[in-house]
Formats: sequence, C-alpha cells, structure tokens
Amino acid sequence: MLSNSQIKHINSLKLKKYRDEFQEFIAEGSTLVADLINSRLEIRGVYALNQWITANTDLLERNKIAVFEAGPAEMQRISALSSPGPVLAIVKIPSDAGIVLEETDADTLEQIVPGIYNELSLMLEGISDPGNFGTILRIADWFGIRNVFCSENCVEVYNPKVVQASMGSVARVKVFYTDTGALLSKLAGRIPVYGTFMEGESIYSSTLKNKGIIIIGSETRGISYTVAGYVSNRLFIPSYGSLDYGKAESLNAAVAAAIVIAEFRRPSAI
Amino acid sequence: MLSNSQIKHINSLKLKKYRDEFQEFIAEGSTLVADLINSRLEIRGVYALNQWITANTDLLERNKIAVFEAGPAEMQRISALSSPGPVLAIVKIPSDAGIVLEETDADTLEQIVPGIYNELSLMLEGISDPGNFGTILRIADWFGIRNVFCSENCVEVYNPKVVQASMGSVARVKVFYTDTGALLSKLAGRIPVYGTFMEGESIYSSTLKNKGIIIIGSETRGISYTVAGYVSNRLFIPSYGSLDYGKAESLNAAVAAAIVIAEFRRPSAI
Repeated sequence: MLSNSQIKHINSLKLKKYRDEFQEFIAEGSTLVADLINSRLEIRGVYALNQWITANTDLLERNKIAVFEAGPAEMQRISALSSPGPVLAIVKIPSDAGIVLEETDADTLEQIVPGIYNELSLMLEGISDPGNFGTILRIADWFGIRNVFCSENCVEVYNPKVVQASMGSVARVKVFYTDTGALLSKLAGRIPVYGTFMEGESIYSSTLKNKGIIIIGSETRGISYTVAGYVSNRLFIPSYGSLDYGKAESLNAAVAAAIVIAEFRRPSAI
Repeated sequence: MLSNSQIKHINSLKLKKYRDEFQEFIAEGSTLVADLINSRLEIRGVYALNQWITANTDLLERNKIAVFEAGPAEMQRISALSSPGPVLAIVKIPSDAGIVLEETDADTLEQIVPGIYNELSLMLEGISDPGNFGTILRIADWFGIRNVFCSENCVEVYNPKVVQASMGSVARVKVFYTDTGALLSKLAGRIPVYGTFMEGESIYSSTLKNKGIIIIGSETRGISYTVAGYVSNRLFIPSYGSLDYGKAESLNAAVAAAIVIAEFRRPSAI
C-alpha cells in the first residue's frame, strides 16, 4: 500500500516544473521498466502489482531496486496512462542531461559530444508532439545514432508521453536542447548538414555519408529559415505513383525521419 | 450558432455505434477538412469559426457545402481534440466501405478489389492504436498503395483519431476488414506474400516485387501463426551498429511499415 505522500510525489512528476525540481521522471509498462532497470539510468523506485513483483524478483534483486507494492486502484491513481500497466518506475534524470552547448566553441564540442564530427547525428526543430518525439528517439536508437540536438521549442524529453513512445531509448540516446542556428554555425563546413524538405534532391540519388547532421523540421512549419541557411544538402523523399483521386501531401515527421535515416544506414553493397 | 440537436449529433459520432447507425464520421482541422472537401467523399456539413468560413468562401461555394457558423465555445463543445481547430466536418462514410471479402472467391476478388493481383497491397494485423493506424494509411497513400486489408481486431478506420492521423488519406486508401487468414488462403500462390518479422531476410537483400501483399503485425504480438503460415517471403529491417549500452529492441509498427514500403518503392536504378 502506498502512502499519500508517495502518490502525491509521483503525480507531481507529470509536470515539467516538478521533474526539473526533483530531477526525476516516470516510466510505465513492463517492457519499458525492465529495459530501464537494465540501462545506465538510476531507478529511484518501482511501484507495481504483486504479480509483477513476483514475476520479476530476480531482475529487482539483481539491480537492488526499491520496490513498493500497489493495488490496481493505486496504480490507477499514479498512472499517466488511460489503461495503467502493472508497473511504474521513478527514474533519476542523468546528471549529464541539459548541457548548454551555446557556450562551447567548435573544438571543445567534441569533448562534450563525442562523435559529433565523425558520426551521424540528428537535429529536430519544433517537434512538439510527444509521440512523434519519442518515436524519433526510438528510430535513432535502432539505427545507432547517439546524439540528438533539439531546438528549444521541441517537447521536453522526460515528458511521460515521450518516455512511453521512446520505449526505453530515452536511456540510450543523448538529447541536447540548444540554439540550433548557433550550433550549426560552428559545424557548417566541417561536416555535411542534411535538411529534409518537400523538394530538393531525392534521397535515392544523393550521396549520403555516414557522418554529419540530419535535420527534421516540424510538420506544420518545416525547417526554419535560420537553420535552412546552414543546410549543405537539401533532401526529399519521393512519393510513388498516384491514386486516382490525389494523394497524401506529406508524411508524418517521425515517418519521414525513419525513411531518411534508414536510407543513410542502408548497406550500399547488397 | 449551433442548435442543441446539432451538437448532440456531432458528439454522438465520436462513438462507433452512432457512426455505424448514421454512416457518418467527423474530421477536424483546416488542412484535413479542405483535403476532404476536395476528395471523392460527401461532406454532410461544415461547422466553423467565422474567420475560417470567410477565408474559405470559394472552396465552400465551389463544392456547395452546407456551412454552420460556430463560436469558439461551441467548437470546444463539438471537438474531439484537446485543442479544437477552427473547423469540423461531418463526412458520409462511402457506400463501398465495409465489403465482406470472406464470401468472395479468388476470381471475383479482382472485381471487388481492383489491383489486388497486380499491385502492392498492405495487410494489417491487430493494429489497435488509432495514431499508428492513421499514420499507416497516410504512408500507404504517399507510396501509391490503394488497398489495405485489416484483421477484425484492428481499430475502426472512422475513429476520429485515425481520421486525424491519416490527414485525409482515409478518403483515398480503401480499407477492408476481413478474416485475414481466409483472404490469404485465396491469394497464396498467386502473388508473393511478404511478412515483416524480427528475423528473416534483410529487406536490403530480398527481391521485392511491386506486386503482392505486405503484412505488418501488431507491435506486441507480431503476425499471428495463422497468417504467418501463408507468408512466402519473411522480411526484417536490420538495425545499425550498437550504442555502448544496448539498443532499441524493435520499431514502432507505423515506422516499420514506412521503412519496408519505402524499400519496395525505391527506384532500383539510381
């Protein structure tokens, strides 16, 4: 049985203000929580139904996790989901989150963001939908992209819906919120800057290198003028054929990210 | 100003029971409603803020649309969204929706589903998340796939969240709910049946034809055993590299659909 102060604390973490204050976020669901327990992140506590605890004793003991048993009604009171799962975890926000890149010069960047000059990274502009944002982190994780740079008007990475959609990728991919234009001004000329637009060169005929930055803009506004000025390679995803009565005007931002990143990671010799 | 009976009718269409009874569904937002007005579907009425009506007079008059002016508070009362847009439309469900394919023999199928034997079609099993389902319809539309076969445990296509995520593709792509195993038993041997799994042959080394059926299973349960038995080509999407501390175990169902379909539609000679 949970105390009122536990319930109140967990519910406070649904708001950014309290996530910032306590440096904690929540994650729910059996697969996601198990993934986070096995990750580099620190679990502050697990709140779960008796059956879940019994089924996961080894995992919990091996990782020395503090466990609190809750009933179905209590899970309902703490969950951020419409259908609560059998488990919710409080997770500590890692201490290396929230680094301010604006104040870093081009040479020091590599120490703070290993791989920035010789790997593929992602930049997101104005991705405000938490489901899309979390899905994009999961795609980056799947395709081995470890650094994601976000404009400050992107949704916060520890929003419960982002965490949920990322399915644990939030523990592996590093997310930096930064002035995207200022960052690109330091990178332009050193690495390719790929921007995804509604027109440009087809991703299928462009030379795609496995280093540089891929920029995904918001569905409604696209990539901002400031950021577009730094793009060295304008890419677009060609549509195919046409149904009798018109066709989709665009793709969802996460879907576009997936298709573009998959093309970068496609083995060139098959 | 809207009448109480109008408000009540619109709100009833948020439930499947009343969508079935009235053969109508709702769609919201400026881009989506304009797309539907220009589509083959019949618009039963448009409910909008004065500014939207003024800005879209030509579109409305050219298509002879019945328009009802509403204030912001009324839009709030009829909207299914947390932040209502400036316009909501009531749309007639097309008369060719809901055809039962189970009772159709293999030769008659081509008359009911033109293209089934010589184009690429999609089959969805157990896709219950409305956002994923709508996003997949938008992907199919973008890549020129006109027929989508769904197991009966997929979400209903006229659910407001599906309509919203499809961004108008619901007007162009044809969705059939059917016994997927029974349908495949008629198609197997005539066309390739591609199934997407967590293992199999890489999509990058498989021979992908521009005809046949691509099956996407649910994220939690994958493709059912019954349906898997009809698969002639087992496909999977390889991940790339590995971050230091593990990686994503899987991709979101809509994202997997996007990557696989894009690979089928990729120009082979670049």
